[in-house]
Amino acid sequence: LWRRQAALAAAQEDEEEKELRQRFMAPPVSGLRELRRRRRELRSRMELLIMETQAEVCRALAALDPGASFAVDSWERKEGGGGISCVLQDGEVFEKAGVNVSVVSGFLSEEAARQMRSRGKSLKAKDGKLPFCAMGVSSVIHPKNPHVPTMHFNYRYFEIEEADGTKQWWFGGGTDLTPTYLNEEDAVHFHKTLKEACDKHDLKLYPKFKKWCDDYFYIKHRGERRGIGGIFFDDMDSPSKEEVFQFVKSCAKAVVPCYIPIVKKHCHDSFTPEEKLWQQLRRGRYVEFNLLYDRGTKFGLLTPGSRIESILMSLPLTARWEYMHNPPESSKEAEILEVLRNPKDWVH
Amino acid sequence: LWRRQAALAAAQEDEEEKELRQRFMAPPVSGLRELRRRRRELRSRMELLIMETQAEVCRALAALDPGASFAVDSWERKEGGGGISCVLQDGEVFEKAGVNVSVVSGFLSEEAARQMRSRGKSLKAKDGKLPFCAMGVSSVIHPKNPHVPTMHFNYRYFEIEEADGTKQWWFGGGTDLTPTYLNEEDAVHFHKTLKEACDKHDLKLYPKFKKWCDDYFYIKHRGERRGIGGIFFDDMDSPSKEEVFQFVKSCAKAVVPCYIPIVKKHCHDSFTPEEKLWQQLRRGRYVEFNLLYDRGTKFGLLTPGSRIESILMSLPLTARWEYMHNPPESSKEAEILEVLRNPKDWVH
Repeated sequence: LWRRQAALAAAQEDEEEKELRQRFMAPPVSGLRELRRRRRELRSRMELLIMETQAEVCRALAALDPGASFAVDSWERKEGGGGISCVLQDGEVFEKAGVNVSVVSGFLSEEAARQMRSRGKSLKAKDGKLPFCAMGVSSVIHPKNPHVPTMHFNYRYFEIEEADGTKQWWFGGGTDLTPTYLNEEDAVHFHKTLKEACDKHDLKLYPKFKKWCDDYFYIKHRGERRGIGGIFFDDMDSPSKEEVFQFVKSCAKAVVPCYIPIVKKHCHDSFTPEEKLWQQLRRGRYVEFNLLYDRGTKFGLLTPGSRIESILMSLPLTARWEYMHNPPESSKEAEILEVLRNPKDWVH
Repeated sequence: LWRRQAALAAAQEDEEEKELRQRFMAPPVSGLRELRRRRRELRSRMELLIMETQAEVCRALAALDPGASFAVDSWERKEGGGGISCVLQDGEVFEKAGVNVSVVSGFLSEEAARQMRSRGKSLKAKDGKLPFCAMGVSSVIHPKNPHVPTMHFNYRYFEIEEADGTKQWWFGGGTDLTPTYLNEEDAVHFHKTLKEACDKHDLKLYPKFKKWCDDYFYIKHRGERRGIGGIFFDDMDSPSKEEVFQFVKSCAKAVVPCYIPIVKKHCHDSFTPEEKLWQQLRRGRYVEFNLLYDRGTKFGLLTPGSRIESILMSLPLTARWEYMHNPPESSKEAEILEVLRNPKDWVH
């Protein structure tokens, strides 16, 4: 009987392993066995969620760009943890699409720890070092067609241990859209889908996180937002770990329905060389935001042993800077600039 | 007699004005009359030097790109001062060439003042504000042909007044080269010309400022320098104002002879699409350095009322980021990377 039970358990394990491998783009950083062993811990559930999200998004994108495929790189971090980067480059529909999972742990310097929290709360470290664990899925999709907007999302979870053993935890994330040209219908669809995901949890969340998004993605020296927003939140540690996780899960599940229909709708739209040029100039602004202001990028570049190629995956394949480019009044180019300067409410 | 003398003086003034107008790209920010009145002050002499340098460089570049011409914009800064930006865009030889003069004055916040000095010396401010004057000429030249290197130079002078009335002054500057492909002969010519300019003043200057340049233009997250260097210095306030000015003048006069012969030599070289692509990837690194690390850019973006278009003029017309681009071993692309990772001495 004992031998039969052992064989059954082994077969079941093989089956689960096979199933999980099919569900994901690559084996998870923490290992399937370990994740199963710690299946009730939030760290494990979050790692499964970010892995699932990565696979869902990659499959949805690949289905729209049949000629291209995702390069999948699993990488390890010497100091602890690793990640899986999936990148589709120079496809027919997508210029560059990256979906990255990272699960890293180790010790943070106080400087890096300060960069991590938007509130800049200082943490008491033991010998100047803070044990931490950070995991997340992050993605930037730059399509070729100027009528298909760029989309970015990121959902992340942090744990950090102070000198006295107190564990701090919080979630952060968001999804936002950066069109080259304004399409009101798309903007409404995008925001409405995000609002529905938020509203299931608390009606206060969408308005708060919509505003946070407009404030965060602000290119100060240009007086413009990076795009038409979406939601953004950080330092979220209430009402409870379980409730915040469920909220984050709803947001992650909303990525495909909020974006993919917009890509499908416009990926075969015709466009002029002038429209392509305006897209390239907007890509330049995207680079300016990411390198000058984005806290995630700065945090990444400061983290010892971080994988530069995965962090800078967010940069577009190509970008352009023209001196003193000012679109004519009442042009389609001026129309999107107006919205970037004065964010609108898309959902009433 | 008195009337005749007055007429003579007026005629002389007209003549000088005409001459100065011909020498410069636009009337100087401080006005010709004011500069003549204060002709013995270092501020005036430095303003004339940066105006002359701007005109010299613009004329030398325009002579090589006959189809294109410089757009000249004079701009004023609400808070005090202004500048003259000269930009040649999308020419036959140059993709984007900008030569900018700025002469600004007013009050600095303590944060901006801290950014100004590389030593980060803190200055005692009166009511949190420091009266300052900053002037300089700065330029980035991005050629089209991947066999012609990008060149950057900047020469600047600062005065800042502390709460007790003490005036601090210092000079800064440098000239450096960023080739897409290594050409040893060009590298030697460039460094040798700069060394000669330095050696006239003090034999210790070139080795010190060559190393400073390699250290400053370091893209930390890539482990690479931006280019093959040149000279760089900051906070230079000894042996005397006059001697440092004479040194800066020699450096400014060396810009044309160190760069223009290289442009002439290679601007008609043939190149492949692969070479153009590698140039675009190197342009991406240029953007990374300028937006993530360059103190001048950060200082500019922090200065209230600064002219964004003139600061970001340094960005190339086009740039490219490919995920995980690694040139094959022993290729020409790997050759330049090796030099960017391990700077060489070009002049013995």
